[in-house]
Amino acid sequence: MKNTFGTSVCVTLFGESHGAKIGAVLDGLAPGIPVDESLIAHQLELRRPAGSISTARREQDAFEIVSGVFEGRTTGTPLTILIPNADTRSGDYTRGALRPGHADYTARVKYHGYEDFRGGGHFSGRITAALTAAGAVAIGALRGRGIRIGTHILRCAGIQDAAFTDPEAQTEELNSKVFAVLDAEKGAEMQAAIREAAKAGDSVGGVLETVVTGMPAGVGEPWFDTLESMLAHALFAIPGVKGVEFGEGFALAEKRGSEANDAFALQAGRIVTRTNRNGGINGGISNGMPLVFRCAVKPTPSIALPQDSVDAEGMKEERLTLKGRHDPAIVHRARVVADSVTALVLCDALAQRFGTDWLRGEEA
Amino acid sequence: MKNTFGTSVCVTLFGESHGAKIGAVLDGLAPGIPVDESLIAHQLELRRPAGSISTARREQDAFEIVSGVFEGRTTGTPLTILIPNADTRSGDYTRGALRPGHADYTARVKYHGYEDFRGGGHFSGRITAALTAAGAVAIGALRGRGIRIGTHILRCAGIQDAAFTDPEAQTEELNSKVFAVLDAEKGAEMQAAIREAAKAGDSVGGVLETVVTGMPAGVGEPWFDTLESMLAHALFAIPGVKGVEFGEGFALAEKRGSEANDAFALQAGRIVTRTNRNGGINGGISNGMPLVFRCAVKPTPSIALPQDSVDAEGMKEERLTLKGRHDPAIVHRARVVADSVTALVLCDALAQRFGTDWLRGEEA
Amino acid sequence: MKNTFGTSVCVTLFGESHGAKIGAVLDGLAPGIPVDESLIAHQLELRRPAGSISTARREQDAFEIVSGVFEGRTTGTPLTILIPNADTRSGDYTRGALRPGHADYTARVKYHGYEDFRGGGHFSGRITAALTAAGAVAIGALRGRGIRIGTHILRCAGIQDAAFTDPEAQTEELNSKVFAVLDAEKGAEMQAAIREAAKAGDSVGGVLETVVTGMPAGVGEPWFDTLESMLAHALFAIPGVKGVEFGEGFALAEKRGSEANDAFALQAGRIVTRTNRNGGINGGISNGMPLVFRCAVKPTPSIALPQDSVDAEGMKEERLTLKGRHDPAIVHRARVVADSVTALVLCDALAQRFGTDWLRGEEA
Amino acid sequence: MKNTFGTSVCVTLFGESHGAKIGAVLDGLAPGIPVDESLIAHQLELRRPAGSISTARREQDAFEIVSGVFEGRTTGTPLTILIPNADTRSGDYTRGALRPGHADYTARVKYHGYEDFRGGGHFSGRITAALTAAGAVAIGALRGRGIRIGTHILRCAGIQDAAFTDPEAQTEELNSKVFAVLDAEKGAEMQAAIREAAKAGDSVGGVLETVVTGMPAGVGEPWFDTLESMLAHALFAIPGVKGVEFGEGFALAEKRGSEANDAFALQAGRIVTRTNRNGGINGGISNGMPLVFRCAVKPTPSIALPQDSVDAEGMKEERLTLKGRHDPAIVHRARVVADSVTALVLCDALAQRFGTDWLRGEEA
Repeated sequence: MKNTFGTSVCVTLFGESHGAKIGAVLDGLAPGIPVDESLIAHQLELRRPAGSISTARREQDAFEIVSGVFEGRTTGTPLTILIPNADTRSGDYTRGALRPGHADYTARVKYHGYEDFRGGGHFSGRITAALTAAGAVAIGALRGRGIRIGTHILRCAGIQDAAFTDPEAQTEELNSKVFAVLDAEKGAEMQAAIREAAKAGDSVGGVLETVVTGMPAGVGEPWFDTLESMLAHALFAIPGVKGVEFGEGFALAEKRGSEANDAFALQAGRIVTRTNRNGGINGGISNGMPLVFRCAVKPTPSIALPQDSVDAEGMKEERLTLKGRHDPAIVHRARVVADSVTALVLCDALAQRFGTDWLRGEEA
Repeated sequence: MKNTFGTSVCVTLFGESHGAKIGAVLDGLAPGIPVDESLIAHQLELRRPAGSISTARREQDAFEIVSGVFEGRTTGTPLTILIPNADTRSGDYTRGALRPGHADYTARVKYHGYEDFRGGGHFSGRITAALTAAGAVAIGALRGRGIRIGTHILRCAGIQDAAFTDPEAQTEELNSKVFAVLDAEKGAEMQAAIREAAKAGDSVGGVLETVVTGMPAGVGEPWFDTLESMLAHALFAIPGVKGVEFGEGFALAEKRGSEANDAFALQAGRIVTRTNRNGGINGGISNGMPLVFRCAVKPTPSIALPQDSVDAEGMKEERLTLKGRHDPAIVHRARVVADSVTALVLCDALAQRFGTDWLRGEEA
Repeated sequence: MKNTFGTSVCVTLFGESHGAKIGAVLDGLAPGIPVDESLIAHQLELRRPAGSISTARREQDAFEIVSGVFEGRTTGTPLTILIPNADTRSGDYTRGALRPGHADYTARVKYHGYEDFRGGGHFSGRITAALTAAGAVAIGALRGRGIRIGTHILRCAGIQDAAFTDPEAQTEELNSKVFAVLDAEKGAEMQAAIREAAKAGDSVGGVLETVVTGMPAGVGEPWFDTLESMLAHALFAIPGVKGVEFGEGFALAEKRGSEANDAFALQAGRIVTRTNRNGGINGGISNGMPLVFRCAVKPTPSIALPQDSVDAEGMKEERLTLKGRHDPAIVHRARVVADSVTALVLCDALAQRFGTDWLRGEEA
Repeated sequence: MKNTFGTSVCVTLFGESHGAKIGAVLDGLAPGIPVDESLIAHQLELRRPAGSISTARREQDAFEIVSGVFEGRTTGTPLTILIPNADTRSGDYTRGALRPGHADYTARVKYHGYEDFRGGGHFSGRITAALTAAGAVAIGALRGRGIRIGTHILRCAGIQDAAFTDPEAQTEELNSKVFAVLDAEKGAEMQAAIREAAKAGDSVGGVLETVVTGMPAGVGEPWFDTLESMLAHALFAIPGVKGVEFGEGFALAEKRGSEANDAFALQAGRIVTRTNRNGGINGGISNGMPLVFRCAVKPTPSIALPQDSVDAEGMKEERLTLKGRHDPAIVHRARVVADSVTALVLCDALAQRFGTDWLRGEEA
């Protein structure tokens, strides 16, 4: 399977940066789930470039649902969302030198030069708009079951956000913010740093931290579809993600077992862990605690500074200076994409575990 | 799919820690590939507990190939390797309190108490012996195509190994070492630290770093089967792995684009990158440079120190002191498992890209 | 996977009879394959209802390719074709009594009443237009490799067409015919019988016979993805197909081994079989002879005659008389759908066997 | 996926006719399902060659369950059954001329001569013993949910068995018979005909008819995983099956819509159909009526009569006279294999629909 992900609930992505339309097919979702178009619009808004810290390309993202919804609810058959590409300026892009950090070279090798290279084609971050739209439907479905996802920019340009203190409440709060941080002051510092990098013709990266509350215990497989495996699989498909860790992740590797294990306790008759260093997952399976994980997002590869490269035919080295509209950072825009793939993976895992109808909630 | 991984080349794992046999079915490998039983034995030897830094459980790992090999070569049909469990002491394990950091609780929720709980059952690291045996066949197949994998213990108990300087030569060297480090002195320090932790009734974790040389460019998919996605999927299925990063990974998130991009250059008419900060992968697709990635391995959850927990029925909290034989560290044993899943993922990706026969090499 | 079929080359279908758009995503096809829009239009024309032997619903099937094609050739990334639904008359359809032979009842049970019931919704034969469009691209790809598919109406309303005598030439000929028979006289008889059934408020079924020439030997898997399994899987997804047989099929069950085996012989140094009773497949794998198989297509369930049924709520029995526009036969329209799914299955099987690039032909 | 079938519940087959062991891994079955070893033994007994109408090869089929069962019940993790090959006489098989009707030639093309050719290797009907053992576990699981499967030899050597009159009772009855017919007299005639064919150095085929009672409505997918698609996929993987039809199948193609539709009616408040011409499936989804389908099984290709063929190297034509032990018919032995793959497909479809735990029944 190439551009399709999932087993019971699956999503297929299509489109190119400068093609007619991009879109997503979301299949396998339970019938009868309310589809909130304003939530889709909201999520697309969060992904959209914002002010001086993003590319000047402006897309209205006027999505259209052409199948799978009837009288405001999912039918249970494939739900297809189309998003037209309006603000394309192909003139900005010709098959120039290979852009470092991009897929220009690897796409060329893989597709023998037949790829639609304009604006990165199918590799463009633009495609994440379709993923975000599909993810919004999944996010809505999970909310109906009391499962909530929130992601903040934990680090950006070396500045660190505050830690989660009340995940349940904070996920809600984060979902209404365009620049998702827990500490507004740190957020202002990050944005200043992004602007400064832009001014220098450069870009910055960052780390996203996601928390999921309300996740039932007992979901995931021992080999090979651990919950970590499935989430990481989807998260690493987000352009720019180069690292994923669960719970305390790489920091756990520095600890002793007595500092890494989460002791079990009883709370109101329910088994909980006193700490959550393992990020809500033991043996690949959810343990009922909040899921916690982080993604490293590399700095945007499109920078204005001149770079060493090779021409498109691979015949001679040349100095490359990129034109066009670029993001000095994508970590704040990638946030909603992380939420989206998380929601899609969880819908799939839950439907595999509890059957197609589970996500319908009370009525099931 | 539950305990099966892969599309064109796939592996299925079965067995429990204290069951009769564990095993793996490796399917889809090209016909005619030499199967070197001594390489399988060697890899199992590397995984086997070693001296004072490992559990006292000793398994001979007398594997038996019961299908898929004829006259010393793969037939192209499923290759099945069985490994009997000999040194099982079930008396050591009764359904006691839930072991923190283990899958006892999550397995109980998922399987409703019907799971074979002895020694962790199907969740036991013991199952990685079968994975290692299957991986050895995949490693052999890749060698026939000039693709080599090597993993070293980059960090353990806070001690850092030397960096790769000549990956091609060093992978070879690492594959002959039981405790895989590039700097023998650092390795001795690590082992001393493991022994010390063991003496304290505790355990330590570490970070593995893997390099793959000879990987052709153009392998991987944009959405969602990026090479990072597929490798991370398999790596996170290794018990204890809580983080995976490619190239400079999380460190990239701290850098600027100009410091993160790998400039292209021509070398003997071939396109290369001057640096390899992206770990040989751009846009999810291999770029012909060595693949580089790291796994965070948490400290072994089985420790001798008393821990807070809850009894198996979830009725009352209790203090748990583990008996039995435990590893004060698994990072050195997990090394060969990382090599194995890497080899399996690459065989799959290559067979998907170039067809079933590609791995046969010259003769194809 | 629900509405997606295939492993290396896969197709996803979406849409409802009376929704905004139907469509297909075709993924995994090699890059660089010419996409002939006139062939797509031609195939859609063959599927379109024709004159007095079909429904009065007329769709222009003005398809639009919105992704995956660049400068007239496949890019190798998902190719998406959209077809708007123009001539919908939803007034004709209200949630009336359950239509016998249709999916009204089963859809209701499966989707709990949330399904888009208008015109059969996602179960409508209308969706086969999208399948036909995707299939046309696959047919074009196979032609580039010398593989040709042809289907004729072997039987309809009890009238039998002539047998294939020169498959290579006849597949070509069939592909230009709206009513695909080898013997034009028999075709005229069939059409008269369809008209007569229509006049009686009834419908007829038929049998389609498909032949594939130019198929390489060695494609298919022993367990469980035999070539027969994969073709049957896709053929049984065509609405109305209730039987599939390969070679002499059910007739083989009446024969002795000496009459059923195909003797091997040498022809110009190439191994062939003297007869082709097994339809070009031995042990689930193609043997290089033409593939031959047949599908039984049941009579259209929508008939004008009154039928016994139950109301939509399942509360009371009632007499049902269908209104709306119906086909007195679909076998002649299903023909091109059989060609399409055959092409899609073969593209997938060939890409699995020989790699992604094989379908590009000479240039590969 | 090659030798693995299924999505939520899946089976992997391995082994060769003359290898050390054959086996099956059954994965995804709910935990807590009783595993009745005597039922496995009984099903293997039904598959075993019987008296003068079968091959003289006698296997004890002493199966061993090495994983996935604990205290007599499924654990929910992979259940592996091994069956040693005892009565192998490899001396009977050398790489002789290509046997017509067998996979000798296609295997050679696919595996380039590296296949284990002895006794048909991985293509041997012998492998169905492993499939039967896995199927027995699935059959037991379905029984716990009131779903029963029965198959009879509808036709053999031109002799027709009686039709089902009381499927519920008759499935039970059939499961205790070695030669499964509803009319014992017809069964005796069939066996006489098989013996006669054997005497003539020839073989005969037949048609199997399967009925499934107790199947819930609402299971199956519109595109492409219709219940017919999934069953046909698995049934066509049984060696020798060349045709599959549902309900009245090919006979429906000869009828009018008014004779093919199944009228709905109410029976004790439940929606039923008055007839069952569509075999319990509408629009690819179960409708709550018994599933009914038939498989055409070709005559055994191994016959004693001399046949025209080509030598193994494909260099010269030669006359082939088979030695060794052969079945003059396999239809009576294939019966239990049809039951097995049916059970496996249904367990998978039900688990996909209702979740992993559904098959546990009351306790779920």
